[in-house]
Amino acid sequence: MKIGIQGEAGSFSYEAAKRLVTTCTVVPCSRSVEVFDLLDRGSIQAAVIPIENSLAGSVTEHLDLLLARDVFIQRELRLRIVHNLIAAPGVRKRDIRKVYSHPVALDQCRRFFRRNPRIEPVPFYDTAGSVKHIVESGTRDAAAIAGRQAAAVYQGKIIDSGIEDDKQNFTRFFLIRKNRKPMPGANKTSIAFVVRNVPGALYRALGVFAMSGIDLAKIESRPIKGKPWQYSFFADLLCGDDKLARRALRNLALVAERVKVLGVYPAA
Amino acid sequence: MKIGIQGEAGSFSYEAAKRLVTTCTVVPCSRSVEVFDLLDRGSIQAAVIPIENSLAGSVTEHLDLLLARDVFIQRELRLRIVHNLIAAPGVRKRDIRKVYSHPVALDQCRRFFRRNPRIEPVPFYDTAGSVKHIVESGTRDAAAIAGRQAAAVYQGKIIDSGIEDDKQNFTRFFLIRKNRKPMPGANKTSIAFVVRNVPGALYRALGVFAMSGIDLAKIESRPIKGKPWQYSFFADLLCGDDKLARRALRNLALVAERVKVLGVYPAA
Repeated sequence: MKIGIQGEAGSFSYEAAKRLVTTCTVVPCSRSVEVFDLLDRGSIQAAVIPIENSLAGSVTEHLDLLLARDVFIQRELRLRIVHNLIAAPGVRKRDIRKVYSHPVALDQCRRFFRRNPRIEPVPFYDTAGSVKHIVESGTRDAAAIAGRQAAAVYQGKIIDSGIEDDKQNFTRFFLIRKNRKPMPGANKTSIAFVVRNVPGALYRALGVFAMSGIDLAKIESRPIKGKPWQYSFFADLLCGDDKLARRALRNLALVAERVKVLGVYPAA
Repeated sequence: MKIGIQGEAGSFSYEAAKRLVTTCTVVPCSRSVEVFDLLDRGSIQAAVIPIENSLAGSVTEHLDLLLARDVFIQRELRLRIVHNLIAAPGVRKRDIRKVYSHPVALDQCRRFFRRNPRIEPVPFYDTAGSVKHIVESGTRDAAAIAGRQAAAVYQGKIIDSGIEDDKQNFTRFFLIRKNRKPMPGANKTSIAFVVRNVPGALYRALGVFAMSGIDLAKIESRPIKGKPWQYSFFADLLCGDDKLARRALRNLALVAERVKVLGVYPAA
């Protein structure tokens, strides 16, 4: 099974894909939109995308793509994010002057940089890509911050492990496919909806779920392109594809302008 | 009056600051947290920060800082974002091979890059900073994308104007101060709140406003650090500092764990 990811082999998306489907072949893409294009064309059978991090928040580009494209969420995974300082074999910590990584990863290791003021953080496009870069270029005064998978893939050496500031650092991933049939045991539903531009519209929309006893795990808003200061809502509901949920979604359609079911899947 | 911004002179924040307070002296800072630190120490009297763009969405770092710091929103401004291709004087369009700008600006000018396939987009830390860079370095084969203010500040030449894909491109800015006294005519209120972790909690919170006839202009969620999968909500209410609004906020405090008024200001 070929699974597309945004980012390089060894990235956290790579690790998530391997955990979700152990035997998969990962297809790295430089941009998220390419991942969705490959899935659309059938060149890959699934994609694994990060949807939110417990510290940084939602990956808004992926919310927008889930709404725009014809895909369906089949599974979710929560991955503990552990950042490591990784260098080329033989490089000593005291020689390191620069550390490359994705800006979000650098931002999540501020304490490391405060404790090592002679080391400069340098933004790079990808965590695993930064490991690839420092190992392949053979630099002796630079390191990278990434997951331990990246060290394994590019033969880097882990110098410091668990250098993230906050241990409550998790990223939630979705496995998406073209197939809209939910897996057995699916008990969580992700939807997007747009309410009419009238007072109390969101309150009435949420009332549909409150009255059905369906709990909301998350709600998020995103701007609608071309309509400044109007928003789509993305919600995660604790319900599967049963009678109660279907009736609630029909009732939501009565008070909303648009409703799209993004996926029904087993809660992680 | 000294006003702090994140970014360089000539940036969109610079333009917003000049529009809000014509005679102000703008103090550029490289990071948003520095802007808040300067305001806290009294080194600047106000700060102007972008809070959301009608295409890209919220500036989540600024939402988090508004919640964490002791500041108050005094005014809002909506600025139409016009992107321009700017080069050093004498540089011809046909010689340009690279265009530097902030990733969000590059992403908002995709049509320009499709029409000019020989020009490569290069991510840079700031729109105005990219103009400063190409003018000061004297490169003849590079340009930058930024607002027209940046061309004026750094003596760049505007080669193409209005190259953004979508004309419905606006950024909303806040002017923030330490002073918590609302201006006359304040009719909009921004709040942050945390609901209890029980079913229907957000529905009951929104019910407070629906029952008072107070309209919600926007609601957004942000993760709470250290509490994975729990969220703060940021809401903009169409009400000033009157009896009805005060009663609604007291009622919200009965159903919410925490409520913070981020500002009361005249709607733009």
